[in-house]
Amino acid sequence: MKVSRIQLDHGAGGRASQELVSGTFLPALENPILGELNDSALLDIKGMRLAMSTDSYVVDPIFFPGGDIGSLAIHGTVNDLAMRGAQPLYLSVGFILEEGLEVVVLERLVDSMAAAAREAEVKVVAADTKVVPRGKADRIYINSAGIGAIPPGVEVAGQNGQVGDVVLINGPMGDHGVAVLSTREGLSFQTGVKSDSASLNTLVADMLAASRKIHVMRDPTRGGVATALNEVALQSGVGIRLEEQRLPTRSAVNAACEMLGLDPLYVANEGKVLVFVAPEDADLVLSAMHRHRLGREACKIGEVVSDHPGRVVLQTGIGGTRIVDMLSGEQLPRIC
Amino acid sequence: MKVSRIQLDHGAGGRASQELVSGTFLPALENPILGELNDSALLDIKGMRLAMSTDSYVVDPIFFPGGDIGSLAIHGTVNDLAMRGAQPLYLSVGFILEEGLEVVVLERLVDSMAAAAREAEVKVVAADTKVVPRGKADRIYINSAGIGAIPPGVEVAGQNGQVGDVVLINGPMGDHGVAVLSTREGLSFQTGVKSDSASLNTLVADMLAASRKIHVMRDPTRGGVATALNEVALQSGVGIRLEEQRLPTRSAVNAACEMLGLDPLYVANEGKVLVFVAPEDADLVLSAMHRHRLGREACKIGEVVSDHPGRVVLQTGIGGTRIVDMLSGEQLPRIC
Repeated sequence: MKVSRIQLDHGAGGRASQELVSGTFLPALENPILGELNDSALLDIKGMRLAMSTDSYVVDPIFFPGGDIGSLAIHGTVNDLAMRGAQPLYLSVGFILEEGLEVVVLERLVDSMAAAAREAEVKVVAADTKVVPRGKADRIYINSAGIGAIPPGVEVAGQNGQVGDVVLINGPMGDHGVAVLSTREGLSFQTGVKSDSASLNTLVADMLAASRKIHVMRDPTRGGVATALNEVALQSGVGIRLEEQRLPTRSAVNAACEMLGLDPLYVANEGKVLVFVAPEDADLVLSAMHRHRLGREACKIGEVVSDHPGRVVLQTGIGGTRIVDMLSGEQLPRIC
Repeated sequence: MKVSRIQLDHGAGGRASQELVSGTFLPALENPILGELNDSALLDIKGMRLAMSTDSYVVDPIFFPGGDIGSLAIHGTVNDLAMRGAQPLYLSVGFILEEGLEVVVLERLVDSMAAAAREAEVKVVAADTKVVPRGKADRIYINSAGIGAIPPGVEVAGQNGQVGDVVLINGPMGDHGVAVLSTREGLSFQTGVKSDSASLNTLVADMLAASRKIHVMRDPTRGGVATALNEVALQSGVGIRLEEQRLPTRSAVNAACEMLGLDPLYVANEGKVLVFVAPEDADLVLSAMHRHRLGREACKIGEVVSDHPGRVVLQTGIGGTRIVDMLSGEQLPRIC
C-alpha cells in the first residue's frame, strides 16, 4: 500500500525503505548503476574500476558504548566500499549542525573521525558544514561519501551469489543495535554490550588475498542479518538456508533482545560482514578471517541453495524450518 | 574569539565558517588536500586526476522561484567540480527526511534532481535515505557528493591567481539569495527575481576550450562575490581590485537589497562563476561565455593587482576606494 507521508519505517532499511527506493528513487533517477542496489556503485572511469558510496548518519545518541557518530560515519562508508572489494581511498564529509551544539562536542567527534580515518588509511579530502536553527536538527547529522579502487580480478556484488556458496559472518550479531538502544533516553538498562562499529577494509583485504572466489559481501547494518540476506537472495535469485544453532550472538545481546522483544537477526551491526564464498575456498577464507582482529569469532552460518529462490529459510534447533523475512516496520529508529 | 557553541554564523560561509574550518576541522583531519580549501579536492588515482566534492543542502523554503532543494543539490555539487575544471561524472545523494514529509513532495524533488542530472549529463549512482522523527529536521535535507575527471593540461585552483589576471563573472549578482528570501515566511515581498540556480559545467567546458590560461574559477555561493574573492585573494596571496560601476546586478535585486539592508556583493548565487584569466586571453574567454546560454551577461568586474595582497578593494563610482571584507556574521541563514 502506498502511503502519502514519510514514516520512520522508510528509514529503517527494511521493506518500507525498499519500497521507497523502488517506487520513488529508481524510476526518476533511472540508471543501471543505481539500479543494482549494492552497498556501493561500480564506476568505470577510463578503464579504472572505482566504487562510490554515500551514507548519512543520524544515530541517537551521538555517543554510545563502543563508538560515536563521528567514527561511525567513517566506518560505515569505508565498509560500504569494502563490500565491493574496493580499497577505500578518499572520503568527503558533510555536517549538518544544530545551532547551539557545543563546540567541544564537535571537536571530540571530529577527532574521533580523524582517528577512524587514520586507522582505515583513508583520507578525508572534502568537507562541508551547514548550520540550521535550534529545533531543526538533533545536535549533529553527518554524511560521508567515499571512493575506492577495485583491484583487477575482484568481482564482488549482491548479484553474484551461487548455489553451493557457503555463508560466513565475522562475529556475533546485534552488538551495535543493542549498544545504542541501551543508552537511549528512557531505556537506561545496562548491558555492558559495546557497538561493533569498525572499519572492515583490512579484514576484507585479507579475505580477498586468501581467495578470489568470494562472490558476495554485505554488511548487515539497518535491518540486520535477516534483511541483508534477503536482499542478496533477491538480487542473486537464489535461496539461502541458515542454521539457527550456528547463528552467533552474545548472551548479553540475547538477554537484551528478549527483554525488548527484538530478534537479533534484525538488529543492526556496524562491524560485521556476510561473506558468500565458493565451498572449496570457505575454509581458506575462514582461516584468514580468524587471523584478523575483527574476525576472531568468524563462523559459517548457512549456505546458498537452489530451493526457494529469493527466500531465506532458517533451520531451527528442533528440526523445523521457518521463513526469515526482510525487516518490515521500524524496529530501532535512528540506529545509525 | 573562540565561542563555545555553534551559531548560525558558522554555516554562513563567511568568517565564522572559516574559523570553524581552520580551528576545528583542519587540525584534526590534517591532510594537504583538504587544507587547500578549494571547491573540490584534487585526487590522483593511479595517474588519473579526479576532483571530489560534497555539499549538504538545507535551504528554506525547499521550493523557491527558479528552483528547489532537489535541483540545487545537483547544481551545487556539479559546480563545485566544474570550478576545478573537472568534467562532472558521478554523484551520490543522501536524504535526511523528516517523518511526515509528504511523499508527493519527495517525488517532485527527486524528479527535479533527475532533470537537473540529465541536463548536466551526470549520473546519480549511489543514494541513501534516513528518516528522523518529527521536529528533528525541517522536511528534507539533501547531501550530494560528486566526482569528475580533470582533463590533461587543466590547472585551475584558488592558489593560482596571478597579478594581471582579469576577473570575469557570467552575469548579475544576488539572484539566488533574493529569490529565496522573497519567499521566506514573514518576508513575503514580491520581487519577480528568480534564482540563478544552474549547472555551470557546460559553460566551463566552453571557457576551457577557448583558453588554457584560466587560473582560478570559483562559484560565489554563501557569502557572495565578496567572500569568494577574499578567499582567492588569501589563497593566491594577491590583491583584487573591483570596479564598482562594472558590478552587475538586476534593478529588482538592488531594490530588494536596499529594502532589507543587504549588499548584493554578499548575497548568494547558485549559477555564477568568477573567472581569473590571463589578460591576453580575457576577450577570448568573455566571447565564449557570451555564446553560452548561462554567460550572455558575462562581463569584466576587476583585476588582480600586486598592491594589498590578501585584500579585495572596490573602486567606487566617485573615485574613492573601500575595502571589501569577507562576510562576517550571518546575513541569510539557510540560503542553500
